[in-house]
Amino acid sequence: MKEAIAFIGLGRMGREMAGRLLAGGHPVRVFNRTRSAAEALLRQGAKAANRAVEAVQPGGVLITMIADDAAVKAVMTDEVIGALGTDGVHISMSTISPAAARDLAAAHARSGSAFLAAPVFGRPEAARAGKLWIPLAGDRRAKPRALPVLEVLGQGVFDFGEDPAAAIAVKLAGNFLIASTIEALGEALTFAEKSGVDPAKLQTFLAGTLFDSAIHKTYGKAIVEEKYEPAGFALSLGAKDVRLLREAAREVQAPLPLAALLEERFLRSLANGRGGLDWVAFTIDQREGAGLRRPAEKPSESIADRA
Amino acid sequence: MKEAIAFIGLGRMGREMAGRLLAGGHPVRVFNRTRSAAEALLRQGAKAANRAVEAVQPGGVLITMIADDAAVKAVMTDEVIGALGTDGVHISMSTISPAAARDLAAAHARSGSAFLAAPVFGRPEAARAGKLWIPLAGDRRAKPRALPVLEVLGQGVFDFGEDPAAAIAVKLAGNFLIASTIEALGEALTFAEKSGVDPAKLQTFLAGTLFDSAIHKTYGKAIVEEKYEPAGFALSLGAKDVRLLREAAREVQAPLPLAALLEERFLRSLANGRGGLDWVAFTIDQREGAGLRRPAEKPSESIADRA
Repeated sequence: MKEAIAFIGLGRMGREMAGRLLAGGHPVRVFNRTRSAAEALLRQGAKAANRAVEAVQPGGVLITMIADDAAVKAVMTDEVIGALGTDGVHISMSTISPAAARDLAAAHARSGSAFLAAPVFGRPEAARAGKLWIPLAGDRRAKPRALPVLEVLGQGVFDFGEDPAAAIAVKLAGNFLIASTIEALGEALTFAEKSGVDPAKLQTFLAGTLFDSAIHKTYGKAIVEEKYEPAGFALSLGAKDVRLLREAAREVQAPLPLAALLEERFLRSLANGRGGLDWVAFTIDQREGAGLRRPAEKPSESIADRA
Repeated sequence: MKEAIAFIGLGRMGREMAGRLLAGGHPVRVFNRTRSAAEALLRQGAKAANRAVEAVQPGGVLITMIADDAAVKAVMTDEVIGALGTDGVHISMSTISPAAARDLAAAHARSGSAFLAAPVFGRPEAARAGKLWIPLAGDRRAKPRALPVLEVLGQGVFDFGEDPAAAIAVKLAGNFLIASTIEALGEALTFAEKSGVDPAKLQTFLAGTLFDSAIHKTYGKAIVEEKYEPAGFALSLGAKDVRLLREAAREVQAPLPLAALLEERFLRSLANGRGGLDWVAFTIDQREGAGLRRPAEKPSESIADRA
């Protein structure tokens, strides 16, 4: 019998991850504030809990995939932590702040349970396929039990030690690198377009030669095609992560001017109602800044041309 | 008999490229302001010219690999262009400004010769191995003759049309992406180090998962090892390229805030005497800004530890 899992937080990523665990033979008991999110999972064999505390079992394994610090704190009450009890393991897989991770670790330690931070890299498609990349940090004793579960979800788990904040720092650094890549690609393609170079041709050149990583290919293509939906990773969540990075960087006194530039970019994008688009949509701000119009805004002749 | 080549500009890249052409069976006549740079090539069979005009032949092929606009203009006098004459082809392979490329194209057109811009991506090792990546643009009629020569130097040649400035724009955009990657990696690794995460471990994680491109591997390793020499690409040349990018972007009205940030970084590095180091050395400025000392500045105990 595979390890039974309590799974809380059924957003776009959480749904796929819980589904992957079910498909891997794990009994899964789910809880989500919005009940309808669980429906497909119940058809796959998940059990639904009416309250978070009913999802967890004494000494069991709990995974949370909850968007932000406030929501995690609202869910992880003393009652829920108490219900997990001695030998219980909480694996937090969303991107919360390093400070919140340490607070949770302390609360679990007081109750005899263990806390692990295991934030994930990858979009919903990667979660469905069990192809996430997972940095892990936290209570050493809980890792042997957590690993087989994490290996169902990811194609690689990397141990960054006992301070759960370390795994969060790795996640924030990684997301920062992705956002930086989007910023750089967007600026390069905007410059190319304004210089009379075909952006699609430049993108093909770059992705086929110097920058042959999946990140460059995926986002370069999205920028060139101006494809901002569906939101594999919502712009509002990207904005949260860059804010968490800057807060953490302030804490350790690490000046990060590129992160500051990105935060402005995200703010401008949120202010223009783009929080629900994929985060690659912050490149719209670059295009608009350069006076480039979107196809829908071009004169009707060009639409006729396409017909 | 392979095409005879006049080759002007024997810096770190030019020497390797001329050597590669010789090894590929091309007769090569070289000219360099500093004569000593040619010595190894002469032993490989190159002929030396005492003046630029003596390197070129009427109707021949000339390659220039000259650091900047001013030096190219000083070499490409009306006398030299005239000596190349009708049906001569000038392939400019260094990174000059888009404006200088257009000026040269016009001067050649007046004289009946053809101009091609073919700036290169790759370090001296890549040049030696014929593994450069080469965007090409310019006079259509000259391309069939230039291609077999460029294919000795590069592993791929990509045609960006008839405006020579287009190939320069591609080169500037590509170098900007590389410099952006260095900035982002350096900030991420600085943040990690200050957060108590082992930068080498983070670098291994990133390069092995999300960012598996050669650029990330090469520069990530150099940043972690604080290896700033030898200068495969000198910081002073990187500073020149970001300046050219900003000038070109101003010309076409493309706001590039990340390029502006990089220019400041380069200026600070030049001001601190780092122009002769590899351009990855602009990450020293990030480390210093974050209060991180270099190993040589650590107390002597840590040096003893390494013994």
